[in-house]
Amino acid sequence: MMACRLPVQAAGPLRFSLPSVQLRGQQTLGSASTPLARHAVRHAWALSEERLVEVEWEDGGHSQYPFTWLRDNCQCPKCFLASAEARTLLLSDVDINIGIDAVEVTDDSKVSIVWPDKHTSVFDAEWLKKRCFSAAARQALQEDLFLNERYYWDSKLRVPTADFEEVLRDDKAALDWLLALRRVGIVYLKGAPTERGQVARLAERIGYLRLTFYGHTWQVQDKHMANNVAYTSEMLNVHTDYPALHFAPGVQFLHCIMQAAEGGESQVVDGFHMAEQLQREDPEAFRMLTSLRVDYTDKGTDYCDFNLQSKTFTIK
Amino acid sequence: MMACRLPVQAAGPLRFSLPSVQLRGQQTLGSASTPLARHAVRHAWALSEERLVEVEWEDGGHSQYPFTWLRDNCQCPKCFLASAEARTLLLSDVDINIGIDAVEVTDDSKVSIVWPDKHTSVFDAEWLKKRCFSAAARQALQEDLFLNERYYWDSKLRVPTADFEEVLRDDKAALDWLLALRRVGIVYLKGAPTERGQVARLAERIGYLRLTFYGHTWQVQDKHMANNVAYTSEMLNVHTDYPALHFAPGVQFLHCIMQAAEGGESQVVDGFHMAEQLQREDPEAFRMLTSLRVDYTDKGTDYCDFNLQSKTFTIK
Repeated sequence: MMACRLPVQAAGPLRFSLPSVQLRGQQTLGSASTPLARHAVRHAWALSEERLVEVEWEDGGHSQYPFTWLRDNCQCPKCFLASAEARTLLLSDVDINIGIDAVEVTDDSKVSIVWPDKHTSVFDAEWLKKRCFSAAARQALQEDLFLNERYYWDSKLRVPTADFEEVLRDDKAALDWLLALRRVGIVYLKGAPTERGQVARLAERIGYLRLTFYGHTWQVQDKHMANNVAYTSEMLNVHTDYPALHFAPGVQFLHCIMQAAEGGESQVVDGFHMAEQLQREDPEAFRMLTSLRVDYTDKGTDYCDFNLQSKTFTIK
Repeated sequence: MMACRLPVQAAGPLRFSLPSVQLRGQQTLGSASTPLARHAVRHAWALSEERLVEVEWEDGGHSQYPFTWLRDNCQCPKCFLASAEARTLLLSDVDINIGIDAVEVTDDSKVSIVWPDKHTSVFDAEWLKKRCFSAAARQALQEDLFLNERYYWDSKLRVPTADFEEVLRDDKAALDWLLALRRVGIVYLKGAPTERGQVARLAERIGYLRLTFYGHTWQVQDKHMANNVAYTSEMLNVHTDYPALHFAPGVQFLHCIMQAAEGGESQVVDGFHMAEQLQREDPEAFRMLTSLRVDYTDKGTDYCDFNLQSKTFTIK
């Protein structure tokens, strides 16, 4: 008899942003909803004293970029590997007190800089605009990168639902599922076949399963000499899975293959909501749970022998 | 032609302790070196006002344990699942203002507590002694759990070495290897066969490889349209691998199969040593690098399509 439980708190670490997610062959979610407008540079000049390059945009706006930052971010093939979108310029080759020989706007609206050693850097207008240091531009970039829209919920939540097979088949359905998962933290996928292997199918749709010492997947069922309280038929405390792991799962998939004849109800709680409420109602308790490291242990034998010892905050 | 490089900083996150490691069929490293002495309880009584149970040990020492903590940690089969070494007692069933009906020392030197609802908890003397709340006992437990011995090194380091096949074959050699790896952060294993697959053999000796979007293992060699600067023949900046991952690898294995005819030298730096030095020499820079989150991006196609965006501290 397999009991379906979903007593898992679906919250990732509070302090970290989740990555943007890419569907196979699709544009990223991060950029999907925010097409960039085109920008053009009207003028560009050096402010020698401040060691900044100032750019005036066609719309009249201004942006400033530090000399050193520009040299460090040179996009030429010698300094930057386009296929990896990564710098190759050695840090030891950057003069952090660098000056500038010349700045000009090219015919195709790029900013060209000649450095004292005659090395030339050419920056695309869109590239510069996206990296403008103004508070508003930085805020916009963060929103674009991290999909910050969140919904913290309580018992009034109606769990978002989607169709399992549709998510597997249709890119739009998959995108909607992921956006809801990102925003709410839990989505109920209906209509999965009642046989093993569906968790892997779902994972492969968007990436891959992360192996832990409980295996790539595991069966939540009543087991003799259970190495985890989840493998019993007793009611569980509301909990966050894998607290002993330094790297707790960001998302877990639970597949109900057979509902228990009796019991087996699932409870889910929004840890972000609780943390926010606790911070408001009992700041001292919140401070303690976010600043005092406690010891976590997990040991036993499953996919392999394991004996994990870690020390971390209760809320992080 | 494959170039062997090892420009990787072998440091894990500074703030977290690494888990203790268990060899298949061996006792844990954590407890291997610190056999516990036997302890016996002479007396035990309740301090009702302070809501503490005080224990007097045969050696004359004293320990105190809060009522609520004792009830919460009841080891009876109703409250605790021995096979999982985990609580089953529901938090909602714990009265945090609980009193005590009776405390006594049993004939076999255990502390027995009867609670107001007549539930009885029996605590083993060793179990209690190990969890004594005194500063000294807590320090000793932390040392026991986390193998805190570390060696921070500079260019004078002589990299510890071990024999690859011996580590695979002999448990004592494997333990020595892991202890050195834990203490220094880098160990040079000599004598591995010059064919692929050795990294997996070594990983399976102590656990399993962690999958990332670069695959279970990857070939560090010059590649056309490289999706990572490591896949070029250029000199690399000293770097920490996978900064964009929320969960950077704790340990990396690099296997030199073929040495480049020219170049291919490896550079390793102790990040802990550098962080400590920076904190001493430039506290403001250290404060900035440990408190200002910066954006990391990694995108491309390898084991799967990936487009990772994260935001974290440069030093953590």
